[in-house]
Amino acid sequence: MSDSQPPARQPRLQVGSRGRTVTPVASSNAEAEDMPEFETFDGAMTPRGFGPNLAEFLDIWALDLLKGVRDINKQQHHTAVYSNDNLIVRRAQEFQVKITFNRAYRPDEDRFAIEFVIGSSPQFSKGTYIPVFPNDEKNTLWKGRVIDTSDNVLTMGITPMPDSIVGKYRLYVAVQTPFGIRRTSRDPSLDTYVLFNPWAKEDAVFLEDEAERKECVMNDVGIIYHGAYDDISERNWSFGQFEFGILDACLFIMDKGALPMTNRGDPVKIARKASAMLNCRDDDGVLVGNWSGDYMYGVAPTSWTGSVDILLNYNNGGVPVCYAQCWVYAAVFNTFLRCLGMPARVVTNYFSAHDNDGNLKMDIILDENGKVDRVHTKDSIWNYHCWNECFMTRPDLPDGFGGWQVVDATPQETSDGMYRCGPASVHAIKHGMICYPFDSPFVFAEVNSDVVFYQRNRDGSLIPVRKNTQHVGRLVLTKAIGTDERREITETYKFPEGSAEERTVLEKAELYGCQRQREDPPPADVELILPALEVQVGDDFELTVELKNHSEQHRTLDLYVSGSVVFYTGVPSTEVIFKRPILSVGPKSVSKKVVAVSAKEYMTRLVEQANLHFIVTGKVRETGQIATAMLTVAMRKPKLIVKVSGSPRVREEMFVTVEFTNNFKFDLKDVDVRVEGPGVMTPHRKVHGLIAPGTTMSWTQSFSPWRAGPSKLVASLDCAALRQVPGFTCTEIPAWYTSPSYFISFCTEGLALLH
Amino acid sequence: MSDSQPPARQPRLQVGSRGRTVTPVASSNAEAEDMPEFETFDGAMTPRGFGPNLAEFLDIWALDLLKGVRDINKQQHHTAVYSNDNLIVRRAQEFQVKITFNRAYRPDEDRFAIEFVIGSSPQFSKGTYIPVFPNDEKNTLWKGRVIDTSDNVLTMGITPMPDSIVGKYRLYVAVQTPFGIRRTSRDPSLDTYVLFNPWAKEDAVFLEDEAERKECVMNDVGIIYHGAYDDISERNWSFGQFEFGILDACLFIMDKGALPMTNRGDPVKIARKASAMLNCRDDDGVLVGNWSGDYMYGVAPTSWTGSVDILLNYNNGGVPVCYAQCWVYAAVFNTFLRCLGMPARVVTNYFSAHDNDGNLKMDIILDENGKVDRVHTKDSIWNYHCWNECFMTRPDLPDGFGGWQVVDATPQETSDGMYRCGPASVHAIKHGMICYPFDSPFVFAEVNSDVVFYQRNRDGSLIPVRKNTQHVGRLVLTKAIGTDERREITETYKFPEGSAEERTVLEKAELYGCQRQREDPPPADVELILPALEVQVGDDFELTVELKNHSEQHRTLDLYVSGSVVFYTGVPSTEVIFKRPILSVGPKSVSKKVVAVSAKEYMTRLVEQANLHFIVTGKVRETGQIATAMLTVAMRKPKLIVKVSGSPRVREEMFVTVEFTNNFKFDLKDVDVRVEGPGVMTPHRKVHGLIAPGTTMSWTQSFSPWRAGPSKLVASLDCAALRQVPGFTCTEIPAWYTSPSYFISFCTEGLALLH
Repeated sequence: MSDSQPPARQPRLQVGSRGRTVTPVASSNAEAEDMPEFETFDGAMTPRGFGPNLAEFLDIWALDLLKGVRDINKQQHHTAVYSNDNLIVRRAQEFQVKITFNRAYRPDEDRFAIEFVIGSSPQFSKGTYIPVFPNDEKNTLWKGRVIDTSDNVLTMGITPMPDSIVGKYRLYVAVQTPFGIRRTSRDPSLDTYVLFNPWAKEDAVFLEDEAERKECVMNDVGIIYHGAYDDISERNWSFGQFEFGILDACLFIMDKGALPMTNRGDPVKIARKASAMLNCRDDDGVLVGNWSGDYMYGVAPTSWTGSVDILLNYNNGGVPVCYAQCWVYAAVFNTFLRCLGMPARVVTNYFSAHDNDGNLKMDIILDENGKVDRVHTKDSIWNYHCWNECFMTRPDLPDGFGGWQVVDATPQETSDGMYRCGPASVHAIKHGMICYPFDSPFVFAEVNSDVVFYQRNRDGSLIPVRKNTQHVGRLVLTKAIGTDERREITETYKFPEGSAEERTVLEKAELYGCQRQREDPPPADVELILPALEVQVGDDFELTVELKNHSEQHRTLDLYVSGSVVFYTGVPSTEVIFKRPILSVGPKSVSKKVVAVSAKEYMTRLVEQANLHFIVTGKVRETGQIATAMLTVAMRKPKLIVKVSGSPRVREEMFVTVEFTNNFKFDLKDVDVRVEGPGVMTPHRKVHGLIAPGTTMSWTQSFSPWRAGPSKLVASLDCAALRQVPGFTCTEIPAWYTSPSYFISFCTEGLALLH
Repeated sequence: MSDSQPPARQPRLQVGSRGRTVTPVASSNAEAEDMPEFETFDGAMTPRGFGPNLAEFLDIWALDLLKGVRDINKQQHHTAVYSNDNLIVRRAQEFQVKITFNRAYRPDEDRFAIEFVIGSSPQFSKGTYIPVFPNDEKNTLWKGRVIDTSDNVLTMGITPMPDSIVGKYRLYVAVQTPFGIRRTSRDPSLDTYVLFNPWAKEDAVFLEDEAERKECVMNDVGIIYHGAYDDISERNWSFGQFEFGILDACLFIMDKGALPMTNRGDPVKIARKASAMLNCRDDDGVLVGNWSGDYMYGVAPTSWTGSVDILLNYNNGGVPVCYAQCWVYAAVFNTFLRCLGMPARVVTNYFSAHDNDGNLKMDIILDENGKVDRVHTKDSIWNYHCWNECFMTRPDLPDGFGGWQVVDATPQETSDGMYRCGPASVHAIKHGMICYPFDSPFVFAEVNSDVVFYQRNRDGSLIPVRKNTQHVGRLVLTKAIGTDERREITETYKFPEGSAEERTVLEKAELYGCQRQREDPPPADVELILPALEVQVGDDFELTVELKNHSEQHRTLDLYVSGSVVFYTGVPSTEVIFKRPILSVGPKSVSKKVVAVSAKEYMTRLVEQANLHFIVTGKVRETGQIATAMLTVAMRKPKLIVKVSGSPRVREEMFVTVEFTNNFKFDLKDVDVRVEGPGVMTPHRKVHGLIAPGTTMSWTQSFSPWRAGPSKLVASLDCAALRQVPGFTCTEIPAWYTSPSYFISFCTEGLALLH
């Protein structure tokens, strides 16, 4: 455990555990005890004069881990892209090291091992102490073989086990002498990272399709979808999993969560622990949630452009970073997973049931007149919710439930008493097999709940009047592979609405304890419809209410039209419109009513992500029945213009210009503008005190890309009056070898002399 | 949330959750908002003069909950035994209330409801606000019916739903008037507890056998087994689930753990939360673990005689109680479960693998000479471990995995990152279906791990030399139904050792990710055997080492006999004996060696529960093979004599005498003596500064039993030099009606006047 952590949060043993455990469980990668440089054999005579005796035996002069970006290891292991000078390799795939001895190696008499050691109390049987021998006759875990010998130099191939612990190993070379084991001393430049390997069939995270691996492991920018089901918005996000310091920050998160070292080879356990650690609840994790609209003491969730700032900040002492909402949790979690080599993607579920504990019923209570009873209505349906999927086998479940798994770091009020969720098999959710861990009933309810409208009578009793089974989990989206298109993956979660399979699955889920409204309310013979709207922030607009009469009689409805500013969570902030029109409709016909909404009615009350939510309810005079409809209007935002100039070369100066024109009739104050791009530009930020109506803000910032290839510059503008104005531009830096200075600076690794 | 809880531990919403949730999740039974005494109907005219208008309508004069111990409700619901004046009923079973009105009730025009309300923000759709109408035409949850009317008095029957929330409800009577709803004011004496109902088929905890219900729900004393597999000890324990204040203490534990009210009808969620809350890790729960041998700042785990003191102490402010080891956790957990009406029992698993994270392998490392390498051996096998089983359906799992479920409150280092365990289906464990939640792989490993002996070579590599597949999970015991006998339930956890089914199950478990030593080491042709021993504390004794030679040649072994004082967890404290005999044996024959152990070698170093653990290992000179054997000697203790005198009558004075003679040659200092008996005597304690060798301590204490029937007085003597000397005696207080004073004092409930 590193000293920088507050002591109260350290995993401690119980008061007085002397009689309980032999050693505390190793649960920190940062914790490192040096191995002894000389281990005397029990009963062996200790050498008196040092030099003369030992000089006869094999000695190590140099060890080269071939860790340059152009060397075989980082190229073959897809790790050259990490901004990290140490060796980074993946499991279940051979890497090479070159050892220079004091003389030629004699296979028959020389005994040596390369030792990989991780965490405290390293143990062979726990996989935290791994000696690798040049030939495989021993009962070792990692396979070693001699690839080549020439003069005093031996090239050795080492293949980590497919279930090796993922993390940072210390490396030693141990040589056996008649008196004991002689060992090289600790050299931090030899520390070697071992990651998950989606390219290796034996690895639990193996993903077959190369294009999908490129997207879900190697792509460090992505798109996160938000807005509303019928008016989808998107924002670019810089995941930045290869940026300097990010890999160490990810290991630090596992240390902070005290995940036992022995669990760190298992993607199920790592993903589960990370879902708990990405939020600060319970465990002082990475991000502090804030849904209040007041972000005075931190960064507004809408303002972030990427994960790098957040992770580097957290790594600097383990203090939770302010603030996050669901897409920030999902984006940073995605960085964590891709950084460790687990295929991962951010998905968005539109109309997501929430905080609902596996209950398949969301209740909306109406009073006797059909008006929403704000006192008794306690549930909310989120307009959208973002979570992550990560790809892995599930050896802990029966066959068939591996593949994509839901993990969610947004703290839920009711997920098994702790703020974490998953991994839950997407396939198990589709088939209603929610008996399999972890938290499947919860995720199932997020995509499958019914919305039930109740009428509350004078004596307090509730009568269900309408049930909408299609509203929740309407659409699940993720970014397409290789392009910036949307990809709908709803069908991986659910059978088509109304299909026989869907009904079967819902019945199965009920058997597993999901509670559901069973009685269908009597069907109403009139129907209210609210057609979708596209509205630009700041515009006046008109809401149309359609009334369809399915009956043979004339119908008259007393309507209530209520419009509220809502958070993306569906929680209403202020009611901005309330009207009581009366609408009549002839037998078997349709009539319409237009309700005008002016900008000044809603503009001053907008909260982030600027949604308006309308509920129209009406009581039929002739029958006493209630009809109701809802509509969420996600308001269009002005765009941020992002432009790049200068010569696109690695290590050459370039410029990015972010521009915004205030076309509103009001001032924008304390405007936070951010821009970053993985591989090309570290996160930058500028605060503009005032952008007056009709004026244009323009900010130019220089940068020097350090990596060739395609990337994006992701920008955002954010202020209290106007949340989340996104912008981005694509860049393409020509391949690195066109810039000779780059070549030289990255190829200076020498042979590390050990003695 | 009550004010007495420290604010840092309260379930808080995230910083700024205004936009996230409409209301915080209700998670405290103690939190109570009064319901308004008058709810005006929207738009209705408010009455101006009060009296004249309302007098015409139905008015409540009295409400009798029939809550006396002899009344129908407590008799039929098996709750008369609780020392609690409020009404206590069980789910899915009718209870009766008598309402006295101002006039005769007119079914056609009078509208009233009895309202049951629990926690904050009561909601109809969450089951926390339950109006019960006298006739069932409404869509209500709890069934109401008119049983009888006579003059102004109406007898109503109320049947709580089988999945009702378990806890303490507030009760109101609401009458509808033309102006609004008129309601009785809060009266704490009407607060009604609703418990689980093992007698009702519809309840998730239904248990068919009446004798088993009597044992596992109604019995408030029990026996907990400890010691060693081949030398079983037992101690009596006063569970005391019906004692004054215990029911409230159990509800407080759920409040402290912030278990959402909506989860409190589900035995799975209550048992899981309680397994986390019974230990103080993570959440300031009930008990502080201590395995150090130093209990200066609290009560030694071996000293407790029952759960009552512990729970009442915790309820007084929620400060964790010092100290516990596994049987204390299991015993208090058992009180919690039985108190709420869940069938539960304490079980003991002999040779329990521990802190082992579903790994089916416990490693013991030997050096090249066959001596145990204490530096590299990190695992320990507990001589025994106690946990709980509770009986329930598992609607969250496929059919067939309900019934007894393992729950364990002893904090484990490695159970899914939190200190809790279960419920895990015993049936699923037996059949290797460890893919079902919760924590099944962990429990599976506790009863199924292999012990593997490794030999560590000079270059650090390990070679398996012996595997013992029969050692772990040798015996699982619980108290028999209705008698004080032992009941072996090993076969509910495992198929017989060596059977074909056992192998199949182990293979299945491996498929689900349990790791196991696959290679069998070469069989040794000699075998070491340590026959079981019975030893009284303080005696000299002899250990016999048997050597059986299966080969056709002569064998000579260099033996190491190592004897250590160990905790019950198998963790060694001090090595007290170390000898190196040499033993020879002819072909196909047996030879023996006797090793003498004197009292003075071990007496000063004994820790609690006084176990000696011997490992004998030997290297065969002829073959270089290693043979090894282990033996745990649980040492016999002197007994405490407990005697009762006086006339056995309810409310009459009686006396208990606890006697102990110090037959050791040393002083016993600061001797803690405790005695208690559920229903007859509250916990008492006395500290004796000194009991000199050869002297007798005698302590007489008076008590007045308050309950008739059979019970036990459980005593213990405990001091640093001699831990856990138990004693008990059975009592039988003749049925209560023989004591007229008792009858009168318990039958004085009148009609509670509400106005």
